[in-house]
Amino acid sequence: MTQEQEAPEPQPVEETDEGRSDDVARQIAELEDGWRRAAAELDNVRKRCSQDLLRTQQQERAAVAARWLPVVDNLERALEHASSDPDQIIEGVRAIYEQALSVLAELGFPRRDDAGRAFDPALHEAVSAVSDDEFAPGTVAQVVRPGYGPDERVLRPAAVVVATRGE
Amino acid sequence: MTQEQEAPEPQPVEETDEGRSDDVARQIAELEDGWRRAAAELDNVRKRCSQDLLRTQQQERAAVAARWLPVVDNLERALEHASSDPDQIIEGVRAIYEQALSVLAELGFPRRDDAGRAFDPALHEAVSAVSDDEFAPGTVAQVVRPGYGPDERVLRPAAVVVATRGE
Repeated sequence: MTQEQEAPEPQPVEETDEGRSDDVARQIAELEDGWRRAAAELDNVRKRCSQDLLRTQQQERAAVAARWLPVVDNLERALEHASSDPDQIIEGVRAIYEQALSVLAELGFPRRDDAGRAFDPALHEAVSAVSDDEFAPGTVAQVVRPGYGPDERVLRPAAVVVATRGE
Repeated sequence: MTQEQEAPEPQPVEETDEGRSDDVARQIAELEDGWRRAAAELDNVRKRCSQDLLRTQQQERAAVAARWLPVVDNLERALEHASSDPDQIIEGVRAIYEQALSVLAELGFPRRDDAGRAFDPALHEAVSAVSDDEFAPGTVAQVVRPGYGPDERVLRPAAVVVATRGE
């Protein structure tokens, strides 16, 4: 760590002291030194910060990618045993799908269940509209493609069919 | 942006000037001001940096997670059509697996092919050994679980069976 000094409280210049000019010269030298150190430290902090940003990004990328490896492993295994009973394959794929949903949820992006909710353009992407007495107007009648992530941090909005008032 | 000033070159204290004490007082006030500004800016840069780090991490997490959504969508679709021909399901799962490998490769972590390579503890995790004339001693005889990522940035080492010298 670089040594740091706090900026000092202003001190009145001593005008009456005998060793005044020496004191003043020392005070000025100290101030200049402090300023220069602070400027150098500022430079260091800036450089370190941009290095840290890059490293954080790479680490997060690797950490999130690594969370998916078990899902990819299981896909590979499912294909290795593809010659077996088709029912077993479907069961395997369902387990892999559930595993993938868990990974997304653990990353903070659970699968959304938007059916029946009030349509909200921040959370939903309307792909079509339907007039059906079964659904209240202005609600999501059908989810065509699910959304992910909580309301306040949607990763992808759900693609939905919106219910409109019946003719 | 906060205003910034460069730390000044040292200036000799004028000893002979008539308005000396005024000049000196001004010089000291300027230096103190400069130091204080630099110290305040340092504080700002530090705070901004830790905010930027958190934001970068969250953005990268979301960006990487979003790359997997098409894979999850396709798993969901494969299950919706699970009642169809089993051969088609297997074909679908193979396509999803290839898609998952592409996502990993695009993130910088291609699937490794370590079979036949010289065993390297930095890249491989030996799970067992085999003595077989087919393989040169000290090479990877079989990959039990594939590794991901290039040599210089392995995301996960491959779990391998190492070939040893025959008895």
